[in-house]
Amino acid sequence: MKLYGYWRSSSAWRVRTALAYKGIRVEGVPVNLRVGEQHEPGFVAKSPAHTIPLLELDDGRCITQSMAIISYLEETHPEPPLLPKDPVHRAWVREQAELVNSGIQPLQNLMVLMRVKHELKGDDTAWAAHWIALGLSALEALAESRAGRFSVGDAVSLADVYLVPQLYNARRFGADVTRFPTLLRVEAACLALPAFQEAHPDRQPDAVKDSK
Amino acid sequence: MKLYGYWRSSSAWRVRTALAYKGIRVEGVPVNLRVGEQHEPGFVAKSPAHTIPLLELDDGRCITQSMAIISYLEETHPEPPLLPKDPVHRAWVREQAELVNSGIQPLQNLMVLMRVKHELKGDDTAWAAHWIALGLSALEALAESRAGRFSVGDAVSLADVYLVPQLYNARRFGADVTRFPTLLRVEAACLALPAFQEAHPDRQPDAVKDSK
Repeated sequence: MKLYGYWRSSSAWRVRTALAYKGIRVEGVPVNLRVGEQHEPGFVAKSPAHTIPLLELDDGRCITQSMAIISYLEETHPEPPLLPKDPVHRAWVREQAELVNSGIQPLQNLMVLMRVKHELKGDDTAWAAHWIALGLSALEALAESRAGRFSVGDAVSLADVYLVPQLYNARRFGADVTRFPTLLRVEAACLALPAFQEAHPDRQPDAVKDSK
Repeated sequence: MKLYGYWRSSSAWRVRTALAYKGIRVEGVPVNLRVGEQHEPGFVAKSPAHTIPLLELDDGRCITQSMAIISYLEETHPEPPLLPKDPVHRAWVREQAELVNSGIQPLQNLMVLMRVKHELKGDDTAWAAHWIALGLSALEALAESRAGRFSVGDAVSLADVYLVPQLYNARRFGADVTRFPTLLRVEAACLALPAFQEAHPDRQPDAVKDSK
């Protein structure tokens, strides 16, 4: 399999974490979002929404959207699991992951920030920080009652895979993360694990050291 | 179980469709987003992100986020299924549903449009129409090669549950849906089914006939 990604994309980062956690090796293919490689016709033929991550299977079939890719990996490589067994706990894991996936990240991705800045002449950093603070406050409230060592109970789950990149983005946009002690405690537990370390943007071959 | 929703929320509509398709009866609790009932402390205690849909189980435990709720229903009430059996087809269904769930809807929900209009002094309708057209173009490209009678193959799936409310919103914001013939064909097949009819906003007790 091949994973098309970009070092700093939080959505690609989620998939890298899932792959590393499950010990699945794939070929990484960098797509440089800063120079618009996601708009090249060869790539759009595989990803009509011009987005990464994109997982290309060995038979050439393609899957985009981090949640679809990670669910596919979970179903085809169930061990170690990223979802608990209990149906309500599974729902809580998905709820917390979706709060990031559909509640925060779509409002602070590069395409949206460019439009806020160039079309609406708005402050794109303030826009991003607003939605991140709002979403992480809700996530902190949920995690407060549900977290053990990790976001939901004591096992690593999808909720953690989505949380870690979102906290990285929160700091990047100047959000005050000290308001989220439960999330920070879980983040520290995650970052102590090799899978989370290996998936970190700074460890990717296409990382650019001095970019904003 | 109780479903907290709002007649016109496309996210609540998705859950209503899944419930109707699976023949699960729940008590509907309207939350009037237009007058801010989602911000009342009693509701926020159940839904810290101030969002509907919210599924409250008989034991009082709560789940928010349409994808988490519908996945819970799929796992606890597997028949009739909303996901195919084949892992790649499941991934495609989730990919198409997520394209709506995280790729389009978050950018055109009420909270975001209010911020575009009041904080950035932008044209909220044009903003919504832009993201809807972009997302549905990608969805059309995916569905073109995958759709049979429905979005992925010949069985109703999550992808259809997410598509129908998004097309309703597309028209509401003036997007030109004639560019998406595959999606329109699938929508017509869905709307011929009782579950999709029953879940329609206009059929909900809290529907307001003359609102924008």
